[in-house]
Amino acid sequence: MIPFLNETFGNPSSLHDWGDAAREAVEVARTQVAQLIGANAEEIIFTGSGTESNNFAIKGLALAQQNKGKHVVVSAIEHFSVLHSARTLEKWGFELSLVPVDKYGVVDPEDVRKKLRKDSVLVSIMHANGEVGTIEAIQEIAKVTKEKGVVFHTDAVAATGTIPVDVKELGVDALSLAGNQFYGPKGVGALWVRKGVRIMPLLDGGVQEGGRRAGTENVPVIIGLGKAAELATANMAARVAHLAPLRDRLLNELPNRIDHVVVTGHPQNRLPENASFCVEFIEGESMLMLLNSKGVAVSSGSACTSRALKASHVLIAMGISHELAQGSLLFSFGLDNTPEDVDYVLEVMPPIVDRLRQMSPLYAKFIKENRGGK
Amino acid sequence: MIPFLNETFGNPSSLHDWGDAAREAVEVARTQVAQLIGANAEEIIFTGSGTESNNFAIKGLALAQQNKGKHVVVSAIEHFSVLHSARTLEKWGFELSLVPVDKYGVVDPEDVRKKLRKDSVLVSIMHANGEVGTIEAIQEIAKVTKEKGVVFHTDAVAATGTIPVDVKELGVDALSLAGNQFYGPKGVGALWVRKGVRIMPLLDGGVQEGGRRAGTENVPVIIGLGKAAELATANMAARVAHLAPLRDRLLNELPNRIDHVVVTGHPQNRLPENASFCVEFIEGESMLMLLNSKGVAVSSGSACTSRALKASHVLIAMGISHELAQGSLLFSFGLDNTPEDVDYVLEVMPPIVDRLRQMSPLYAKFIKENRGGK
Repeated sequence: MIPFLNETFGNPSSLHDWGDAAREAVEVARTQVAQLIGANAEEIIFTGSGTESNNFAIKGLALAQQNKGKHVVVSAIEHFSVLHSARTLEKWGFELSLVPVDKYGVVDPEDVRKKLRKDSVLVSIMHANGEVGTIEAIQEIAKVTKEKGVVFHTDAVAATGTIPVDVKELGVDALSLAGNQFYGPKGVGALWVRKGVRIMPLLDGGVQEGGRRAGTENVPVIIGLGKAAELATANMAARVAHLAPLRDRLLNELPNRIDHVVVTGHPQNRLPENASFCVEFIEGESMLMLLNSKGVAVSSGSACTSRALKASHVLIAMGISHELAQGSLLFSFGLDNTPEDVDYVLEVMPPIVDRLRQMSPLYAKFIKENRGGK
Repeated sequence: MIPFLNETFGNPSSLHDWGDAAREAVEVARTQVAQLIGANAEEIIFTGSGTESNNFAIKGLALAQQNKGKHVVVSAIEHFSVLHSARTLEKWGFELSLVPVDKYGVVDPEDVRKKLRKDSVLVSIMHANGEVGTIEAIQEIAKVTKEKGVVFHTDAVAATGTIPVDVKELGVDALSLAGNQFYGPKGVGALWVRKGVRIMPLLDGGVQEGGRRAGTENVPVIIGLGKAAELATANMAARVAHLAPLRDRLLNELPNRIDHVVVTGHPQNRLPENASFCVEFIEGESMLMLLNSKGVAVSSGSACTSRALKASHVLIAMGISHELAQGSLLFSFGLDNTPEDVDYVLEVMPPIVDRLRQMSPLYAKFIKENRGGK
């Protein structure tokens, strides 16, 4: 990326040599991203983030199809960039149906079928949930949408680059991804749209990205996304083999070390780096702060929701109580993490939880009510 | 920027220490950008580009005000990110009025007044035009909009960082800027919105940027934009003193060296780096290619429009014929340019123009019709 921040600072849409070098680099990146998801390069539209990809997909696909109908279907556990975009569509006269999930956060394809109507024009179900790690049955849902002739978008921001994602195997019509989810830079994402599927631009202006996304191409981060995609394609199996055992050790052991801990998300079908829990009687944010002081970076809810100070809509949709959802804790493992890191967490967590529970009125009440039993 | 691409890769919306470092850096940048335009830091919203800032402003301000009315007013020479956003508003039930310009590309504030109606909710007139360099009388237009109680946005992407821009002096309600216009990185812009002015998000999702622009903050480029703003604030007078004489030498001399060359844009009120022309009887793109082969990077129309293969809407609005507009040529000087660069252009241009005119049927026709005279 560095040369393109300095000496090779051409604008890809310029017609002179300085523009050519930038343009060629962007097209290499487009091919690298396409290869990561089994797509054709010309179907990749670069965006500024996963959030932009999702806004573009939800608003752009629905608006392009609105002469057919004004009904959209999304799951209850979508990222806010999908959910709030769908809410904006409601303000614009669309109707919205939310598909429920089970206690593991899984969408039943038959529930999608039940929500579909004659005027449905768009279904959006995420590939994997970044908060609880659950991987959805996208292929099965795609069979339903194909049968009904409805455009199907999947937010694969949390999945792409981490687990194998192939648009042809999945059978979807559009897919969002973002670079900072798999060691690429921030500030870049992509939307894949199957050839022939119509979409309205979110960013109007110049003719960049085939007229589908205006704005000077952000060359350095596009190149970073391309390289990250290439590395993810090459190393995916090794990465999963590294991450999944770390995840499994924490998922299995933490409930043995601390009472009243619930694993959230699906026990098997989950992202290899995701270990998520709810710890009863205490607040996730307090645990986060104390873990931070021990050098452990975790989140409670997603980074996008953590400052919203609300219980996670994902956990609530899974049937978890507001009280328990307050104690949510998300560990996302990275390639630099080791089994020793897991041991360290298993060592520092119990005293932190003990300390917080000693100050918790909820815990005091529970103990009082259950005196004698565990 | 570099540390924030590597070791300090925290997410500003995360609550742990790694997030804190990123967040603090973003807030420093916000203050730097605010200082460049005389604004308060909390009124700055970071975006992914000037194009996004303009889309956000036009759509977001109009939609937030639509209960008051559905009429918007923009000039005929706006950048496509403003003009096409306004066209999208038309699809959404708004009415659009275009304000004309004179032969120099100047908007008459009284023409803005004439377009305003009871149901007008938004005026957008650019601060300076990047294609022909003309600087608009924003202060005077702001008096009209204030009197009429209509929100006034200015696209100051081409002006900010190049000439003094102060939102309080200008009297506008919202202002777009972009980093790559003043030696900042690509992929970052900002929208300033005066406190108290309502705007609807363009990107729905998380609560970043005070809930007004969702998506993980693009930390490295935001830091780059902040630094570029700081340098522009400190060095503006010196930069203008360097650029304006280069511009003036080319504007004055090129028409002396080549017949049938027209300077476009305002003779005095123009951006210090902009020298734009129309060369009769030949195509701008051919001149661009031949200048490129001599090591000179120019554009014909803007980079955003050059691939659209249409005559510039800016030149057409200024009353220039389609034929003449085809020969448009834009020189943008940079801080590395020298008087010798101007001399070089003055030396290489005449033979290029001669060569192209020898192949031009339009020129042959002109010569035939004017045989004997010049």
